[in-house]
Amino acid sequence: MVTLALDLAANPVELTAALVDVPSVSGNEAALAAAVEHALRSQARHLEVVRSGNAVLARTRFGRPTRVVLAGHLDTVPINNNLPVRRTGAGADLVLHGCGTVDMKAGDAVMLHLAATATEPRHDLTFVFYDCEEVEAARNGLTRIERELSDWLTGDLAVVCEPSNAVVEAGCQGTMRVTVRTNGKRAHTARGWLGVNAIHAAGEVLRRLAEYEPRQVEIDGCQYHEGLQAVCVEGGVAGNVVPDECVVTVNHRFAPDRSPEQAEAHLREVFAGYEVSVVDLAAGALPGLSHQVARDFVRAAGGQPVAKLGWTDVARFAALGLPAVNFGPGDPSLAHTREEHVPAADIRRCAEVLTQFVH
Amino acid sequence: MVTLALDLAANPVELTAALVDVPSVSGNEAALAAAVEHALRSQARHLEVVRSGNAVLARTRFGRPTRVVLAGHLDTVPINNNLPVRRTGAGADLVLHGCGTVDMKAGDAVMLHLAATATEPRHDLTFVFYDCEEVEAARNGLTRIERELSDWLTGDLAVVCEPSNAVVEAGCQGTMRVTVRTNGKRAHTARGWLGVNAIHAAGEVLRRLAEYEPRQVEIDGCQYHEGLQAVCVEGGVAGNVVPDECVVTVNHRFAPDRSPEQAEAHLREVFAGYEVSVVDLAAGALPGLSHQVARDFVRAAGGQPVAKLGWTDVARFAALGLPAVNFGPGDPSLAHTREEHVPAADIRRCAEVLTQFVH
Repeated sequence: MVTLALDLAANPVELTAALVDVPSVSGNEAALAAAVEHALRSQARHLEVVRSGNAVLARTRFGRPTRVVLAGHLDTVPINNNLPVRRTGAGADLVLHGCGTVDMKAGDAVMLHLAATATEPRHDLTFVFYDCEEVEAARNGLTRIERELSDWLTGDLAVVCEPSNAVVEAGCQGTMRVTVRTNGKRAHTARGWLGVNAIHAAGEVLRRLAEYEPRQVEIDGCQYHEGLQAVCVEGGVAGNVVPDECVVTVNHRFAPDRSPEQAEAHLREVFAGYEVSVVDLAAGALPGLSHQVARDFVRAAGGQPVAKLGWTDVARFAALGLPAVNFGPGDPSLAHTREEHVPAADIRRCAEVLTQFVH
Repeated sequence: MVTLALDLAANPVELTAALVDVPSVSGNEAALAAAVEHALRSQARHLEVVRSGNAVLARTRFGRPTRVVLAGHLDTVPINNNLPVRRTGAGADLVLHGCGTVDMKAGDAVMLHLAATATEPRHDLTFVFYDCEEVEAARNGLTRIERELSDWLTGDLAVVCEPSNAVVEAGCQGTMRVTVRTNGKRAHTARGWLGVNAIHAAGEVLRRLAEYEPRQVEIDGCQYHEGLQAVCVEGGVAGNVVPDECVVTVNHRFAPDRSPEQAEAHLREVFAGYEVSVVDLAAGALPGLSHQVARDFVRAAGGQPVAKLGWTDVARFAALGLPAVNFGPGDPSLAHTREEHVPAADIRRCAEVLTQFVH
């Protein structure tokens, strides 16, 4: 295998393009991991470098009083006829298009640039480039690192460089799926009055959903917009039978000031009178912006942090006890689309903010 | 194949038991059809007998001014550990239990008894013993007979001997299935407010169903109870997506004073504002009890006719222009149950009523 030579210090925009042109669909990150490892070992000699599967870990050991962990995944969703990288515009308007541009090789490039250039940072720095973020949690490289190399995930602030339009996104909402079940009594539809129609009974469940007013909560200056959405409805026995069961599956997104237990209690209240079962859940993560290092980072990013809407590995770091933020180039709503792209200006800005923050 | 000897003239109750003990699940009626054909040819020499597949047709050709068609299917639903026939009680309280007792070998026995004993009827008589009534309409023996031997289905009154508790059931309701569709706009549930939830929108459809007051209509002295029941609901894209479509399938049972077109127009009114599509329909059948032969039959049965609730081959005869009634021994709600059974008293009564009517 020929290992691509990456120039980490020169230009994070060109570095992004170079990373994009090494395909790395989940499970096939070996070539990219090798290039990253080789570049770090040769161009960032102040770092301790470790390889773990298709993940590459690097850190300073300067004995600084504080440590910042930066994390980015190397894998992408499947290529969709959108490689190699394509450029439009120029200068301040340059945009890179292609698989992985926004999710999240631009963020990886910013991290690699910082790893090579921040040779005397005021915080100790840990860089985590990991594999298999785009697939099930059990395969996620961070799960393995947490199990086998947990001391690499400790520090005072975690910055996950997923796309956030180069704005600090803090914390994330929890998500819970529940089923709400109605019961009835079967009968032949020719004698429908002998039965009780469970689908008709679900009308009241849907009415409560339609009328639900989601909370909007401000925490550490971040606005969280909750949600309660039916994502599935199923009922019916046969074309001539009054159905005796109907199940509505509801997805609740809840602000991180609520624990999963509190969120569940809330749903049981909303759907009082119905059989409610929790199908799956993931806790939210408080923004944690009251910590000094986090405050410094928000100041360096020069703006008001906003709430993270989706659920990312930010929550994983929060669960480990680190204040964790999301900060990276590009628009997150373009992730996983064939048209994903990232503005060069975002890449430059993120690199500048991080450089300023660590010096 | 040994053909069972049936004694048609002796006792319709014992004849029922003998028919029940010849298994005849849909598609496997050959042995029973052979026994019926053989018995008719040897014990009812006044009849013209024709075999069509596993159907047996027999008729008088006395040149009477009126003709009555009696119809019964020979097949049963699958045997469910409920053969051979079992007896409980005795005398007036004798009950026959087992697959096909009520649906509808008791009716077949009454017809066979009449075929053998009514050697000088005042109406010409046609007897149709047919196959595959319990499966899809395309396999139904009557469909084939209608196509190939249509003159066997003409007359002034059709009596279908399906179970009716030995009471005249007249006409039948129409049935129509429609889908009612709601549309919305997909979005990630983390940003649910950017979408429009089609499942929530279906709440109003279910509310209208729950509040619907079905008509009850009297026609020719028969009371028809309409119905409108959701029989299926389906919606959902993925566990984290606001769904953009939801489909409620609704079964409408409508009294025979409404044509299918009128019933459809009614449903479009009930679900105004939604996309309504007709999935399938079968017209109802007016009782047709104003015709003289039908009036005579109702008088012979000695009582008030009642509306047929389900949809049976009565509607098929009505569509051919014959007034058609349902009249047979046993409780129709036991049909297709493992516990099906028929009282001997019902069998005797039906045989007496028919004998009186044709003499």
